[in-house]
Amino acid sequence: MASYKAPLQEINFVLSQVLGADKLAALPGYEDASAETLSGLIDEAAKLIENELAPLNAKSDQQGCTYNGNNTVTVPDGFADFWKAYAEAGWIGIMQKQEYGGAGLPYTLGKVIEELLCSANVAFALYPGLTQGCFEAIAANGSDEQKQTYLPKLATGEWSGTMCMTEPQAGSDLAAVKTKAHPQDDGSFLLEGSKIFITSGEHEMVDNIVHFVLARLPDSPPGIKGLSTFVVPKYLVKDDGSVGERNPVKCVSIEHKMGINGSCTCTMSFENARGWMIGKPNTGIQNMFVMMNLARIMVGYQGLGQCELATQNAIRYALERKQGKAFNGGDVIAHHPDVRRMLLQMKSVTEGARVLCYETAMHVDASHHAADAAAREEAQDWVELNTPLVKAFCTDSAVELGSMAIQVYGGHGFIKEHGIEQIVRDSKILCLYEGTNGIQAMDLVRRKLMLHGGRLPKRFFEAVRADLDAAPAFIAAPLAKALAELESTTRWVQESYKLTPDDAAFGCVDFLRAFSLTYLGWNWLRMVRAAETGGDAAFAASKRATAQFFATRMLSQVPSLLANVRESAAELMELDVAAL
Amino acid sequence: MASYKAPLQEINFVLSQVLGADKLAALPGYEDASAETLSGLIDEAAKLIENELAPLNAKSDQQGCTYNGNNTVTVPDGFADFWKAYAEAGWIGIMQKQEYGGAGLPYTLGKVIEELLCSANVAFALYPGLTQGCFEAIAANGSDEQKQTYLPKLATGEWSGTMCMTEPQAGSDLAAVKTKAHPQDDGSFLLEGSKIFITSGEHEMVDNIVHFVLARLPDSPPGIKGLSTFVVPKYLVKDDGSVGERNPVKCVSIEHKMGINGSCTCTMSFENARGWMIGKPNTGIQNMFVMMNLARIMVGYQGLGQCELATQNAIRYALERKQGKAFNGGDVIAHHPDVRRMLLQMKSVTEGARVLCYETAMHVDASHHAADAAAREEAQDWVELNTPLVKAFCTDSAVELGSMAIQVYGGHGFIKEHGIEQIVRDSKILCLYEGTNGIQAMDLVRRKLMLHGGRLPKRFFEAVRADLDAAPAFIAAPLAKALAELESTTRWVQESYKLTPDDAAFGCVDFLRAFSLTYLGWNWLRMVRAAETGGDAAFAASKRATAQFFATRMLSQVPSLLANVRESAAELMELDVAAL
Repeated sequence: MASYKAPLQEINFVLSQVLGADKLAALPGYEDASAETLSGLIDEAAKLIENELAPLNAKSDQQGCTYNGNNTVTVPDGFADFWKAYAEAGWIGIMQKQEYGGAGLPYTLGKVIEELLCSANVAFALYPGLTQGCFEAIAANGSDEQKQTYLPKLATGEWSGTMCMTEPQAGSDLAAVKTKAHPQDDGSFLLEGSKIFITSGEHEMVDNIVHFVLARLPDSPPGIKGLSTFVVPKYLVKDDGSVGERNPVKCVSIEHKMGINGSCTCTMSFENARGWMIGKPNTGIQNMFVMMNLARIMVGYQGLGQCELATQNAIRYALERKQGKAFNGGDVIAHHPDVRRMLLQMKSVTEGARVLCYETAMHVDASHHAADAAAREEAQDWVELNTPLVKAFCTDSAVELGSMAIQVYGGHGFIKEHGIEQIVRDSKILCLYEGTNGIQAMDLVRRKLMLHGGRLPKRFFEAVRADLDAAPAFIAAPLAKALAELESTTRWVQESYKLTPDDAAFGCVDFLRAFSLTYLGWNWLRMVRAAETGGDAAFAASKRATAQFFATRMLSQVPSLLANVRESAAELMELDVAAL
Repeated sequence: MASYKAPLQEINFVLSQVLGADKLAALPGYEDASAETLSGLIDEAAKLIENELAPLNAKSDQQGCTYNGNNTVTVPDGFADFWKAYAEAGWIGIMQKQEYGGAGLPYTLGKVIEELLCSANVAFALYPGLTQGCFEAIAANGSDEQKQTYLPKLATGEWSGTMCMTEPQAGSDLAAVKTKAHPQDDGSFLLEGSKIFITSGEHEMVDNIVHFVLARLPDSPPGIKGLSTFVVPKYLVKDDGSVGERNPVKCVSIEHKMGINGSCTCTMSFENARGWMIGKPNTGIQNMFVMMNLARIMVGYQGLGQCELATQNAIRYALERKQGKAFNGGDVIAHHPDVRRMLLQMKSVTEGARVLCYETAMHVDASHHAADAAAREEAQDWVELNTPLVKAFCTDSAVELGSMAIQVYGGHGFIKEHGIEQIVRDSKILCLYEGTNGIQAMDLVRRKLMLHGGRLPKRFFEAVRADLDAAPAFIAAPLAKALAELESTTRWVQESYKLTPDDAAFGCVDFLRAFSLTYLGWNWLRMVRAAETGGDAAFAASKRATAQFFATRMLSQVPSLLANVRESAAELMELDVAAL
């Protein structure tokens, strides 16, 4: 059976020694968020999650969700109890504004706890995750009344939330959304249409479900500029805030999926369900992207959580399983060179990705809370740049590391009982939802490299370069090489994109991977530096060896990935589709 | 729902135009195996497999196998009927010797049909696959009486076969096998012990099951040199060849797995089950490897079959699914550059791997049938060199392409109904059984590079080099570069292995991938050449574009993979296991 222990030493190391998270407490509004406070809260969340949620992981995968035929869905045993315990302990609203029932603590703290949750049971994590996303969307564009009606209930977990975007013909292409919102005399709307792939669309863990819905007004233009957002509660809310009449937004079926079986994926039918517009007409895409951008970071954390789960179980197994004698005489499989290669790859990717994720979260906090406008702008630049890396790299890595963990387990990894194959099954969806990883790569190449005259990547290049001089050569040299190639390829993309967009688009996934690996190289440089001054020799040795692995065997992929990017795709695009 | 059409044009192209399979008919014993005969038989098998087996793929995955509690197992609906149809049409014994009930046709033909079977339903394919393996093991080392008793029944599919090797403590390390064989006065043995992961260990599709078992005689030395092989039938065979008394070799449970749910994976208990020794005492490992080497090629074909399934479904979906407008104005997703990148990668790997697989099969035929001893020796060299490439590269690719097919389908790929996620689940076991892919890579580095003074890779380098001059530069140049790097890294491995085996072992998986990609580069060169003289302009254009993709974006990985191989692993191996 896969087990899970929160990697508290590593988390504290990254927060305190690598990223200096004590600077969060210097941000206006976060005065109470000292390093000790955060660390204490993380310990507390870890206990609850390790003891109460992780043991449900395999069982909830086997049991899955059940559609009961009368528009109701039953979630796995134990989920409702855990939801209650988790909500009552205040974790769902931990990073939400105090005026709306949250604890007002940093987003970074919320994300660290998200990592723990997503290691322990990523299917469960979606219920609070979407609830937080729904909160953020209403908080950003709702009226005061809407905020007062919905936010405190979402922050406390009395209610949960969804985001309803996808339709059968409108997946990556939201311009094709057809769901209609018919205006009513009282200022409300009746929504009519069908949405698919709605996570947490229907369940009975909470008193009400708040759907955040993308739909089209009758007089709106076609395409992406004619969409608006609406809040559609499962039960209409009375003036006193209590729930009333059932709104005809119905779950008509659930999907049978490769994984995340504990998360219900619903087809929702809006049968003139009553809703209220959030924000202005025809600004739906912008409103949705408030939620979407944060959701993409959330999905990246789901990937990070699964990377950690794969890595710590593979290491544990490799330290227990005896099979043959290694060249060095060792009798557990961690001594076999090829097994050790896999463990170091898993460790170097997971630990490096954690720095990327946490740093991005700290930038989110600074982008909202920094006193200085220039600091907020800089932080926002980093958030924009990092979001596609966090989302795509961490989730691709989750699938890759899950598959590698199976490989470490050998044939046993294929057997459900060991709980390892579940990682691959649970993780694959992460590469698909909230924008496929191909779309993340297009966002990086097409938008993030271009914004503000190319200012975003420039910030990254300068930050890394500033750290190169004082770093040991074993990591500084390959990082400098990767950085130089990345910088010149970035220029190539910026210059060629307008003329030959197919070329850059053809190589965008390789470009995103190269960018992410370079970012992780920087993270390893910083981890080595922090560990060497930390006073724990064994920890420093582990970090150094893992950094060495990353420097020689992962950073080395960057030049050939970038060479791919700069190739012309003209002939490949000209090939007739029928000849594929 | 995933669908399957046998890629007959491609198969015929590879056999006839790329590899010149008409030379099979020139081998003594294969006079009847003209190109037309083979092609006709492939068409016939394709019809049966497409129409009767492929439709069972999703259903048998959902239904799986059932353990009935009384040592019996029920296989999915439809399997018994298809087994009967497949056996009666003569396909199980198609490549077996005529004197033992087979059709005596080339191994190559058998493998082409294996590919079709493994695309249509890889879980089912294991039942005939293991039966053929058991046939080969008895044919190689059994006595005349044993051959007469078992082989005709296995060739006709009246009986099926297994190979019983793994025990809980003995997976990759067969030296740890404990199952005992107690000699009896009548020359038979009573086998006592427990075997796990026994594919097709128990079912009721056939009248008898023949277990080929690795066990230890009481007076045998410990370790790998103390193993012998035994045949243990489920029902004892009477003198007239009919089945008699039930032998106490019992299935006590079956595994619940990530995939190949239609294949029963049994824990077998040998409770003084009666068996007979095959071959000489303490030569069990050699005897088992007769079967194992062919089984590894079989598993590679399973990978090829799944690569084809992933590729053809992804292409079909991408030509149907409309989502947004591409830069070039196209409205199906095959026009989006990143989707096209995935399709070309899938196509280039699948078609390139097919040439590797078929060529290896043709070498197997020549190694047994060539009139000239030098030709047999050369063919055997190729078989030995190619076996780990076929096994590991094709199976790693199956998982990778399966995952990529999901990505092409977007969120829909994660839904079971589409039948695409099954490819990843069914394929992952291929990387594990019959020697994990790490063990294949060690076999390549440690054994195949070293055999006969390094003669095996030298044959490869010479063959590729001979084809470079006349080839178009777009493929010849990157192939020449990859080849040069591969050759120098091969020398490095050959020289350094004895002194620093950990280094080469640490990089062996990267080395195998680099070798395989180079091999596929050669295949693409040969395919382009053959297509250009074939007279079908559209087909030639497709081959040329796909080859260009492979040359620029896959072969380009070779140098960085090989740079990894040549890195020292000393510091990484010295890190204390506790610090991992």
